[in-house]
Formats: sequence, C-alpha cells, structure tokens
Amino acid sequence: MMKAVRQMEAGGKLFIESIPVPEPGPGEVLVKMTAAPINPSDLANLSGDYLTSSWPFTPGLEGSGTIVKAGSGLMPRLRLGKRVACSPSVDGEGTWAEYMRTSVMKTVPLPDDISMEEGCMMLVNPMTAMAFILLAQEGKHAAMVNNAAASSLGKMLIRLATERKLPLINIVRKEQQVLELKDLGAKHVLNSTSASFSTELSSLAHQLSATLVLDAVGGKESATLLSAAPDGATLLAYARLSGDHIQADPSDLMRKEKQILGFQLGSWLNTKNLLYKLRFLGSVKKEMSGSLRSQVHRTFPMEQVNEAIKLYQENMSAGKILLQI
Amino acid sequence: MMKAVRQMEAGGKLFIESIPVPEPGPGEVLVKMTAAPINPSDLANLSGDYLTSSWPFTPGLEGSGTIVKAGSGLMPRLRLGKRVACSPSVDGEGTWAEYMRTSVMKTVPLPDDISMEEGCMMLVNPMTAMAFILLAQEGKHAAMVNNAAASSLGKMLIRLATERKLPLINIVRKEQQVLELKDLGAKHVLNSTSASFSTELSSLAHQLSATLVLDAVGGKESATLLSAAPDGATLLAYARLSGDHIQADPSDLMRKEKQILGFQLGSWLNTKNLLYKLRFLGSVKKEMSGSLRSQVHRTFPMEQVNEAIKLYQENMSAGKILLQI
Repeated sequence: MMKAVRQMEAGGKLFIESIPVPEPGPGEVLVKMTAAPINPSDLANLSGDYLTSSWPFTPGLEGSGTIVKAGSGLMPRLRLGKRVACSPSVDGEGTWAEYMRTSVMKTVPLPDDISMEEGCMMLVNPMTAMAFILLAQEGKHAAMVNNAAASSLGKMLIRLATERKLPLINIVRKEQQVLELKDLGAKHVLNSTSASFSTELSSLAHQLSATLVLDAVGGKESATLLSAAPDGATLLAYARLSGDHIQADPSDLMRKEKQILGFQLGSWLNTKNLLYKLRFLGSVKKEMSGSLRSQVHRTFPMEQVNEAIKLYQENMSAGKILLQI
Repeated sequence: MMKAVRQMEAGGKLFIESIPVPEPGPGEVLVKMTAAPINPSDLANLSGDYLTSSWPFTPGLEGSGTIVKAGSGLMPRLRLGKRVACSPSVDGEGTWAEYMRTSVMKTVPLPDDISMEEGCMMLVNPMTAMAFILLAQEGKHAAMVNNAAASSLGKMLIRLATERKLPLINIVRKEQQVLELKDLGAKHVLNSTSASFSTELSSLAHQLSATLVLDAVGGKESATLLSAAPDGATLLAYARLSGDHIQADPSDLMRKEKQILGFQLGSWLNTKNLLYKLRFLGSVKKEMSGSLRSQVHRTFPMEQVNEAIKLYQENMSAGKILLQI
C-alpha cells in the first residue's frame, strides 16, 4: 500500500489515502516519487476543467523520482534505477503519490547536475516555454504577446525570447510586476489594469508585428488581445486562469483573418516525429539551469497539500510551490 | 450627378442624396445599376461592424446592371455594354446607387437566361454556399453544421449538400422552420430553442462526424456549437447575427484540438489561383437557376430603402428583399 493525494469529486478538498501500489504493465515503469510542483494545469484539473474525466483520482501532472520497477520491454528495463522527470500516462494516476505507474515514454532521465527539485518542474513549464519559441519561429511570427508574464512560465519565456532576440510583449496585472519583469530584462511590459492598456497594446503589437498571442486568461481579455493584434494574428489559448469562456470579436476573424487555436503540450508533441522530439528535449535540457530555471517559493510535505494549494492560489507569480513526497 | 443611398454615420438612417457620377480609372468600369439585394452583411456594414471604415458612404455589397463606361485597359473595353453581376472595389462606393464604379475583376457577365433580378444576388450567397461545400470537401469534413439554416444562404446550402450527398445538420429557431426545411429535403433539422438541443446536436454531430461548424450567430451559441462538435472540429464564423462576441470553452481548444476561424468570401477567393476561381465561378453559374436560386420576398424602389431594411430585419428568412434602382 502507499499514500496518495486523492480528490473524490471535481472541486472537492484533497485527502491523503492509503491505496494499492500499482503494478507496471508492458512498456511501463514504477517511479518512487520525490517531488512534484503545483501547476496552473493542476488547478484546472482539480476544478474539473482539464484532462481528468473520472473521480476519485490522484492529481499531479509532473514530478521527479527514481524508477524502482520495470514492466516488460527493453526500454523499461534499461531505465531501471534511473532518476527521472516524469508525467502520468494512466488516467487518474498522478504524481502526488508515493509511487506512480507510467509509460516509460513519459519519463526523461535527469542529468547529474539537475536536482530532483529542479527536475520535478522540467516537463510542463520549460517544455511549454520552448514550444512557444518554436511555434513563433516555425510560424514566422515576428513577435509574441503573453498575458501571464509574471508566472514561472512567463519568466522562462522572457529569458528565452531575450536570448533568441524574439520580441515579446509581456502583460501583467500589477505595477510592481512591471518593475520586476523589467529587472529580469523584459523590454515591453504592459499593465492590463491601466486605462490606456488596449491602445498601448495595439500600437506596440502593430509596431512589432506581434502575430502570436499566447492567452492564459480567457474571458473578455481574449477579445482585447485579439483585437489589438495585427491582421492575420493567431490567439493560442494555453490556460484558463479567469475560468471564463474565451471571447472574440467575429469581425477580427472574418475581416482580419485572425484565428483562435488551443495549445496542449502533449497534443503538440504528438504531432512531431522522434527526431524532432529528441532535439526538442535536448534543447530544453541544455537550458534547465539557465533560461528555463524555476524559482521555488516554498516546499510542503505532501500531507499539507491543501495548505500548499491555498498559498499557491493566493499568489501564483511568487514562484513554484513544491510537494515533497 | 446621380441618386445614391447614403449613410452619414454608423448605425444612422439612410438618405437619398445627389452625388457626382464617379469616373472609372484604369482597370475599372462604370455600371448602370438595375437591382441589388439586402444581405446580412449589409446590415453588419450599416451598424459599423463589417467592411466599411469611413462615413458617409454608399452601401450595397452586390447587385446587377450594365457596363456603360470603361476605364483604360483591355478587360474593361471588352466588357463594355455587358449585363453583369457586380460588387464594389472602391471603399465607400456600393451598389445602392444609380451608378457604381468598380474594378472589372469585380464584375461577372450574366448568361442570357439569368435575369437582372436573379443576377443581382449571384455573388454573395451562391458563392458563399459553394465555398462552404468546397471547404468541407477539401478539408475532408464528413459533415457540416449550419446555424442560419432558414436563411437564403441556408436553403442553398441544403440543396447543394443534398445533391452532393454531404450530410448537413441544420439549426433553426422556430418549429415552423423545422417543417419548412424538411419539406425542402433537409434530413437533419434541430431547433435551438428546444430544451434538448445541445444533447441532440452533440449526439448527431458525433454520429455524422460533423467537424465543420458554420456559425452565423456568435455569442453563447458559438460555445454550444463548438462543444457539441467532435474533437478536431473547426468553427467558421461567417456572420454575427446576434451582434455579440463569439464565445468558446478554452478546454475545447486546448484538449480537443478544435479551432475557430473566420470566413469572408473576398479573402477566401484571394487565396485561390485564376484557374480555381474560373472553375469555381463556372460551378456557381451552372447552379444559379437550380440549387443556388433565391426566393424573392419583395422588391422596393431604391427610394424606400429604410422601409425595405425594416421589413428584412423583421423576418430575414422570408426571402430576399431587392432594391430596384
């Protein structure tokens, strides 16, 4: 038996339960978990709005640990004993547990110079930030807009974009975050609560030809962002922090050839071939202690998961909250 | 001088004014107008929500007439004296006037068996209906959904789709329209005011793999349509009859790889080469007295344009309202 964080119904409180240790099947491994972060996508999942479709379930969309058991197959056996970053492959079996069974394809061996704490945050944010850079480059977008700029992911994107000389318009909600991101090297930072926000955004987006709009918020802000963007722009929904439906002015879609797409890391990676995936993973690994590092705000033992989530929700841009398992 | 319908400001009443007859420039012709319909896109234009960007202007996005003067160039001279269907090429100079100057490329010679009344409605609805069929076929969509099914365009689409054995889910707002469209040969007709609408739509859309959703309404209905559609579906905004912003559940975009695009006939045609355009025009012409015929509800002299618009707005599915010029 093992301890695991469990949610009984969408939106409900979390409990620590004792459940059976799962048995890895063909192509699967069993990871003894060490650490796991709380991500915005976990909050979406807990509220019933994301990937999970049946309850009760064990949350946690990424983490790190050691492979302690291998199911049948060459790949699982080769990876036995390795320190890995990992994400779930079985619906309902997440990383917030003493052990997680997952497909060996969902594990990435950790280089020696990356700690378990760093490694547990490697898959979701760093890969997403790198994917956004590639999407901009491959789609020939001259510049990007991101409206969750003060988040961990937002900061990674600032560092990556600066390094690669890709102009990025950063949107925050507090004046203090404007200063913080400028200190980090961000050139363009706008405060969405300012009265002149939409005018400033439109003028800057046209000047820089910012045709890739990364939208983590939804609601009316989506319509503002899309209207401010130049003709032909793409709005990419990658989170729903507002909890609201995305809104858009149909004229932007009909007259100005703008479009709205969604981004989900797993689906995006699934469209790529093995060579692309390996190169992608290589470039993420190379930046893990550099542009793609995360700031840890606080670490909680897994048993205090409800307090940990509360603190995270109070200030999502203060840094990552980790669970120690 | 000539008489023209004019609007002084977005949303304002229409006036008949006397303004100078325009002079066709290089590549342009002058059309002596005979007839013009009122389309949903004209209403959007008059409310300030569509193509027109400066006032005062002369409305009218299509019509028919005779070319009475040619600007310089071979094409304009060859078309002198011809009966044509036409649409505007100069911002602010529409078809609701005694004469319209336009690019010769925006005129289509009318076959002898097509009257001026039929020909004046040839460009917008028939071409749009045919474009939707091609979009479905070229995008390998097994079936389509259209939520303005009782409109002129909606009826053309029903006839074309039936002829081409392309399953079409028709959405209307009144029980009487369900019967009317079934009489016309429509197999699937749903009433969006029914309590079981979204469940029925979802079940039918999945059964038929209806992955192309034609949305003329916007607002919350867009979110309902997109959520009911199978994974990978495209919502194509082609009008905004509700006047509201389009709404969409971000989960549909992120998790289910659905997307939202806009459709505007001119922009779509501009992406095609000459051969495609000629073939397209040929197939529209061939169906003009068949699947692509329009029903005329009433004809008004141009001077009664305000009454004509009022009647059209009261019942947009009763048939076309024409202006006699």
